[in-house]
Order: sequence, then C-alpha cells, then structure tokens
Amino acid sequence: MSLCIIGAGTAGLCCARRAVELNQTPTVFELSNQVGGTWVYDKNTGTVDGIDVHSSMYANLRTNLPKEIMGYPDFEIGAKKESYISSEDICAFLNLYADHFQLRKHIKFNSYVIRVLKKREKWQVLVKNLLTNNMEFYYFDKILIANGHYHTPNYIQITNANLFRGQYLHSHDYRNNDLFHGKTVLVIGGGPSALDLSNIISKAAKQVVLSHHLNGISSSIFFKNVVTKPDVKEFTENGAYFMDGSYTEFDIVFFCTGYKYSFPFLSVTSGIYVEDNCVQMLYKQCINIRNPTMAFIGLPFYVCAAQMMDLQARCSISMN
Amino acid sequence: MSLCIIGAGTAGLCCARRAVELNQTPTVFELSNQVGGTWVYDKNTGTVDGIDVHSSMYANLRTNLPKEIMGYPDFEIGAKKESYISSEDICAFLNLYADHFQLRKHIKFNSYVIRVLKKREKWQVLVKNLLTNNMEFYYFDKILIANGHYHTPNYIQITNANLFRGQYLHSHDYRNNDLFHGKTVLVIGGGPSALDLSNIISKAAKQVVLSHHLNGISSSIFFKNVVTKPDVKEFTENGAYFMDGSYTEFDIVFFCTGYKYSFPFLSVTSGIYVEDNCVQMLYKQCINIRNPTMAFIGLPFYVCAAQMMDLQARCSISMN
Repeated sequence: MSLCIIGAGTAGLCCARRAVELNQTPTVFELSNQVGGTWVYDKNTGTVDGIDVHSSMYANLRTNLPKEIMGYPDFEIGAKKESYISSEDICAFLNLYADHFQLRKHIKFNSYVIRVLKKREKWQVLVKNLLTNNMEFYYFDKILIANGHYHTPNYIQITNANLFRGQYLHSHDYRNNDLFHGKTVLVIGGGPSALDLSNIISKAAKQVVLSHHLNGISSSIFFKNVVTKPDVKEFTENGAYFMDGSYTEFDIVFFCTGYKYSFPFLSVTSGIYVEDNCVQMLYKQCINIRNPTMAFIGLPFYVCAAQMMDLQARCSISMN
Repeated sequence: MSLCIIGAGTAGLCCARRAVELNQTPTVFELSNQVGGTWVYDKNTGTVDGIDVHSSMYANLRTNLPKEIMGYPDFEIGAKKESYISSEDICAFLNLYADHFQLRKHIKFNSYVIRVLKKREKWQVLVKNLLTNNMEFYYFDKILIANGHYHTPNYIQITNANLFRGQYLHSHDYRNNDLFHGKTVLVIGGGPSALDLSNIISKAAKQVVLSHHLNGISSSIFFKNVVTKPDVKEFTENGAYFMDGSYTEFDIVFFCTGYKYSFPFLSVTSGIYVEDNCVQMLYKQCINIRNPTMAFIGLPFYVCAAQMMDLQARCSISMN
C-alpha cells in the first residue's frame, strides 16, 4: 500500500507520523523548502514563476487560539509560558514534531504537485521539482490531501467594483504595512483578519474604514483612526457608497473576505467538486465517497485543528 | 476575448476556423506534431515519457460511415470515389481543411495540456512544450475542449479477472496483428471495434472467441475461426466460464469495451464532473453551466460528427 500525502503543514505532518506508526512509508510532497504549511512566512506575494504563493502568513501574527488547544493529542505545544504565541513559535513546534518522529526523510521539498489523476486503481501524481525543473509521474494506492484552506482568496462581488481606480488587495497578499503609509484604506470583512488587520494597518494608514455587517462589535476594540461602516452599496471611481447612504473616498480596498477551498491540482477524474465552498462528495467531510482511497485532512473550520487532523489521519490511514 | 482550443482534430479544427471567421485569434494546443486527432496513426501504445498515447487508430482502418456524411457542412470529403475510405484519407481531408482556412499558424503543436484551472475570470492553462520541456502558464477568457472521446479505455469489471495469467489488452492499444499470431484470443465487446477486430485478428490468430450480449449478430459476418459466446461469468487462470456454462481457454483477453469521457487536464475548479460516463453539468451537452466560458465540442455519440462539431463551434464561439 503506497501512500501519498500532499502538504507538510499541520495536517500533512500528522498524516506522515501516523503512517510511519503503521509501518507504512509515505511520500510527502511539499511545495516549499520547509515544514509548517500556512504558518511559514513568505515575503513573496502573488505568483512566483507562475505558481501561486501558498502561505497567507503576515509579519508578527499571533494566534487567536491559546496554544493549549493547538497541539496534537499526544504532542503539546510547550515552549512558551504565554498562551497566544507567534507564528514563528508554531513553526518551531511543527519542526520539533517533524524531528521527534523523524518525518523529514519522507518529505520531498520544493515539490509542486501539478495534477492528481485517477488512473484505474492508482492515483497518478504529476510533480514538478522546483530545483531541477524536472516533471515526474508517481503512482500511489492511497492519497491524503492536506494542502490547507487558507491559501486561495475568496473575493466577493460588489456593484461597480470595476469603476474604482485605486488598488485592490486581499489579506492573502498582506505581509506588512509598507503599502499603507498615509493612505485611506477601506477594509471589507468581519472575520478575525478584518478585525486584527484594521487595527494593524491603522498604525500606518491615515484612516481605516472597516465595512462589515456584524452585530455587536464594540467600537472600543478599534484604534481611534478606524471607523466602521455597513456593507458597501456600490463603488465609484474614488470611493464607495454604503448601505446607510454615506459616502467615503479611499486609496486602497483591502478585502478580508476569507478563503475558499481550492484543490487546483485535483483532476475532475478524482470525483470531487467544490460547490458553494463545500467539498462534495465526502463521507464525514473526510473520505472521497466516489474514490475512497482519497481522503481530505483538515477541512472542517470550527475545530481544534491539530486534534481533528490527527483523528482524521488515523482513521483514513487505517482504512482499507 | 482570448480563446483557447484544446486539440487539433475534427472538433478543434472547425473551432479554429469559426473563430478566425469572427476575427478572433485562437490558440490551439495540440499534443502531437500534426492535425487530425484520433485519426492520426501512432505506432506507440501505452505511455511515452509518462504521457498517455492519445490515438486509438490501428493500421488499415476504414471508416464505418460513408464519407458523404463525414465532412463539414460547407467543406465535404471529395477526394475518393468510394464511400468507405481509409483513416489516411480522413487525415488528408483534415490537413486540406487546415490549409484551406490557414489554421496552422494558430496551432501550437507538441503541446501537452497538463492542467486547466479557473482563476477568477480567466482560464489558466498549464502547457508543457514537449520539444523544449518548458512548462508555461497561459491565460484565456474562453476555452473550448475538443480532446475527443476515443482515447481513454473503458474497462469492465469481471469476476476473478485477477486470476487470469495471460495477457490483457484493450483495443486502444491495438495497432496490428503482430501480437496475435497463432494465439487463442478472447475478444470482449459487441461494438464496431469488437466486430471488426474479431475478423481482423482472426487472420493471424489460431482462434478468436467473441464474447458479447448482442441480439441478432449473424455468424455469417465472421470468418470461420471466430466463434461467439455469451458474457463471461468468471475468469480462471487459463480461461473463462461463460454465462451458458461453457468453458474456453485462451492466451489473450482483448477488451473492445469502448472508451470513456476523460478530461485529465481539467481541474475540479472547472465545475465539471463525469458520472456514469455522462459529463455534468452541461447545457445542451456543450456549455459548462457553472462556467459558461467553457464549452465541450463533440461529446454526443450518435451524430454526424463534423456537422455537429461545426454547429457547436459556431454556437459557443459566438456566445458572449
């Protein structure tokens, strides 16, 4: 039983560890040159040599969950005293985990998974080695998809968005405040990124206008040059009208509208389809119903991620 | 409006012609080094450098439709007097068509389309140039899929197929009779390939056993060393039991069980899924409902192919 794992982040690492535990020899393909997945800071944004930059990590990010519930079931995050730690601390933890279970020898780094194809009973995996530029076909009996779900921006449609002449950005491409000095910035969104980044950007920006439709956000959680607005009604060349009839001008629109499930490498032969941001057809949001030798590790959102990933890894690897 | 066409066979060529007619400049990606698609004979079988051989053409094939209904609406096949012509004649016709409408300058030959991805409003097409081994990303507004449906074997499941120790072949991999001299061959299927190839193989084989479940095939259409049987009940190491209780031994099992719709390059982001050999979700078996800037040219089976492809091409190219 040959096993492929795509990604060496929180999900992929515990898959590799559980496979080794069951005397399997997994092959892990990792796009970057290190473990950690979305926690690895990458100064690049957009695409590099046509390949989308994977991580959405920005400088100085701290976790919004306490570290006490972010570790694996039997491998906790123990290094620091404080509960809300930095992304570097999470990376250090994942590196510790990879070393402890001797996982690195199973990981092919700098490996861009281009395509995953069902070919009779096997999964054909086409991989480009980014160091040599060689493209190679691999064949596996089973495949675990652990590529995360914080990498492909979800853009929302807003009336007359094409009229606006300023800059559009998405939080996926946020790294630091360099672009925002002295600017007026419209932040769109109501999730953790929108709230955190409104304050962070406001340190550099002249003003931040946060547009959202959440109830019960106290204005006291924002710095003083952050104002809140309801949803945008429509854009103009230099600004936007909001649902309350007010109008504001700004230089940059900054979408904090989250991410969507995306498996660009998955061929339609896999039997998977993503509709309304739900991955179809999965058993228990994990096993590919049409091809049960494929599993997805880490899809559910409101969970203790590493705990759930470890459970999913054990379940899907021990299935025959 | 940039337009991509995948394949330079009967479907892709009329797409290119109709696009040019509407003052568009299409980009046609073609895997081989010539036009003609499935009509191009390729002595290779299986895979070459990991890439599946596309064509299923075999030596000396003649059409089973008269040439009078195989041409395009306003460009007929006129070269020969007889109605049932050779595959080389069809290839010559398609080359004439390509020259007449000056299509070659739009075709990128030796171009292996690896992946087609929806990326916001554009289609990202990842192509490997087989001559230079370079991999390149292209972006298009619209894409026409014209890769045919006679390239990916459809295998059927038969009890104890894994017990049989002889050779398994599929008509996709048939080129000539070299492998069949003096052998006893079980042919499975009841379509045109099964009927034609049973007779062709019987010229070299010791005996051909044709297993099918069709009604009304007269034994007189077969050469004398072809015997017919009902469906296989189960395989043994050296042969098979049939549904009528009889048993036969043979050296080779030759599947003429047809082809299935296959778009290995299509990412799940395209919104397409193939279920029970139906391509879902299409409007009029042509336009991708979820992403109407993608169309499929040539899917329906029981049609005058070139006539229908030309209609589909005109419709989908003129759509906005």
